[in-house]
Amino acid sequence: MSPHQKLPIAPELQVTQWLNSKEPITLKSLRGKVVVIEAFQMLCPGCVSHGLPQAQKIASLFPPDKVTVMGLHTVFEHHEPMTPVSLKAFIHEYRLKFPIGVDEPGAGGMPNTMAAYQMRGTPSLIMIDQKGFLRVNLIGHVHDILVGAKIATLLAEADSLKLQDKREDNDGGDENGCPVPDNV
Amino acid sequence: MSPHQKLPIAPELQVTQWLNSKEPITLKSLRGKVVVIEAFQMLCPGCVSHGLPQAQKIASLFPPDKVTVMGLHTVFEHHEPMTPVSLKAFIHEYRLKFPIGVDEPGAGGMPNTMAAYQMRGTPSLIMIDQKGFLRVNLIGHVHDILVGAKIATLLAEADSLKLQDKREDNDGGDENGCPVPDNV
Amino acid sequence: MSPHQKLPIAPELQVTQWLNSKEPITLKSLRGKVVVIEAFQMLCPGCVSHGLPQAQKIASLFPPDKVTVMGLHTVFEHHEPMTPVSLKAFIHEYRLKFPIGVDEPGAGGMPNTMAAYQMRGTPSLIMIDQKGFLRVNLIGHVHDILVGAKIATLLAEADSLKLQDKREDNDGGDENGCPVPDNV
Amino acid sequence: MSPHQKLPIAPELQVTQWLNSKEPITLKSLRGKVVVIEAFQMLCPGCVSHGLPQAQKIASLFPPDKVTVMGLHTVFEHHEPMTPVSLKAFIHEYRLKFPIGVDEPGAGGMPNTMAAYQMRGTPSLIMIDQKGFLRVNLIGHVHDILVGAKIATLLAEADSLKLQDKREDNDGGDENGCPVPDNV
Repeated sequence: MSPHQKLPIAPELQVTQWLNSKEPITLKSLRGKVVVIEAFQMLCPGCVSHGLPQAQKIASLFPPDKVTVMGLHTVFEHHEPMTPVSLKAFIHEYRLKFPIGVDEPGAGGMPNTMAAYQMRGTPSLIMIDQKGFLRVNLIGHVHDILVGAKIATLLAEADSLKLQDKREDNDGGDENGCPVPDNV
Repeated sequence: MSPHQKLPIAPELQVTQWLNSKEPITLKSLRGKVVVIEAFQMLCPGCVSHGLPQAQKIASLFPPDKVTVMGLHTVFEHHEPMTPVSLKAFIHEYRLKFPIGVDEPGAGGMPNTMAAYQMRGTPSLIMIDQKGFLRVNLIGHVHDILVGAKIATLLAEADSLKLQDKREDNDGGDENGCPVPDNV
Repeated sequence: MSPHQKLPIAPELQVTQWLNSKEPITLKSLRGKVVVIEAFQMLCPGCVSHGLPQAQKIASLFPPDKVTVMGLHTVFEHHEPMTPVSLKAFIHEYRLKFPIGVDEPGAGGMPNTMAAYQMRGTPSLIMIDQKGFLRVNLIGHVHDILVGAKIATLLAEADSLKLQDKREDNDGGDENGCPVPDNV
Repeated sequence: MSPHQKLPIAPELQVTQWLNSKEPITLKSLRGKVVVIEAFQMLCPGCVSHGLPQAQKIASLFPPDKVTVMGLHTVFEHHEPMTPVSLKAFIHEYRLKFPIGVDEPGAGGMPNTMAAYQMRGTPSLIMIDQKGFLRVNLIGHVHDILVGAKIATLLAEADSLKLQDKREDNDGGDENGCPVPDNV
């Protein structure tokens, strides 16, 4: 990535209800971690057959203090059968363990978070780096090798960043005076 | 099968609503065909991953005038999210083309047809021979080779039966006087 | 099948060596059984990924006194690396348990049994009925449901035949005087 | 990785013959790239079903100027059927496109490169970083997500290294005076 490329900040989640989580989750609270979001609909065959299993595998393979995995139920069709009550039964039956947010219904059928991210459908795989920048936003089936590579790349940036921060600290910078540039 | 074994007549379906079919379907109307019924719940992972795809494959491989394939939505848990409205969206998303009946809700959570067949869960694979006898009633994943073998066995019985009937006719029997025994 | 259709007798196997069998095997000795032959080459990817696993599954699902499964190593290319010595290591590594015959090398690269059956490549799936007639000769991937159906159809013919034979016996026929017609 | 951990230099390949490559390949010539080596035997079922397909997928997903993928035929059993002639036919049939080296036969059945790497069997997945250090040496099935993550981690180290080198240059270091430590 070019040092002068402007990265978009990942829009905050607009969630009406969280399942598998006692507390509401904000992206802001996850700064310092790589965040993987599986946007899905419970009646979407591709989500059921590969998107959600892939998310579960990610959650089992990476340390939770470095990589946070969550689901986002982005219902943009068949609203009636995909209510939170239905989702709850689905989560139970499919043994999903990671936190899942219900995307806030929006005008025109498209829920608000989905619209803010300009997702094109489900499943969509979202990755956010440790500084909160939106780095991956892909629809459809993404090969496991690429998914693993992308997560590790973001993790490595974080490590590199720490090293860099320390050096900058050594140079006498402080948090106000040396803001991390948008392009990191 | 021993010639003296008594086969059970397959209980008639108790269905409140049919999808993918303009007319209600009765087992009685299907005499002369082998009937394959996939009993499922739309939120049952095993039904989604192998039971229903297997049923679709059966429907595509055997001639419809000899083998009838249908689904039966036997909801015995999570009743709220598995209503006919939800089922309709599910059928649309999973591109299911064969007729699907909604099993009539019964006392105690178990729907009536499911109870009459003493099914033990979903997916359950039911096969009924051309004379209306219940011949297969299995829960879980049944290997494709066995499924193919069982259907062909029932089809062959039908052929054999026709041959036999003809011979009996030649011997002077009539339909009233020479009823086909229960055990065929 | 029309009663007047003429079925070909399955040509006898021309095998130079048997593995997984102490005795040479002839088709003639298998009359009364349904015979399934998986013709393969050990370096043929389709044989390794689905042909041979399917043959092993057949061998595990049907009773050996009714269905005989065997392999036939029909090498028509890469002769040097697919010698019996190589085949033996292959059988060991892939844990193949059914008898496997080495098809006799013929003129022009094509081995003799393969040529006699006019097989078009590997994997080829051969089925022979209990009377020794060649009934199935298919190249490539055959769906498990169809394979199961075909075996069961041949098994059912056998059952039907026994019934028929008995009746003919009752009518006073004898084995010489009442030969089973070619078309059964 | 701790900065004080001592990494082993990957032993040079001992290869008698290269397939899919006009020139012999040395690890030394690949400095600056991440090197992925799939050690396999052509008659090893796990190599055929997942090790080699994974290697092919890696080769197709990462840019060849950054990641080099090669095979190593490490025959430690069934030597007779796994000669270079057999391997050549195997490569042809399985459409393998990356360079494959034949590991030099050694004393006691174990080939020399395999012994030098202390591999425990096949398939073994080897990864070497851009400085020539051995970083991954795993036997068996490694999940695609982990494989992707590991390659990306090594790629990121390379990028980080370049950055670091530049900074060190800025600090007045020169290549002789500021050698990159073994543990990078």
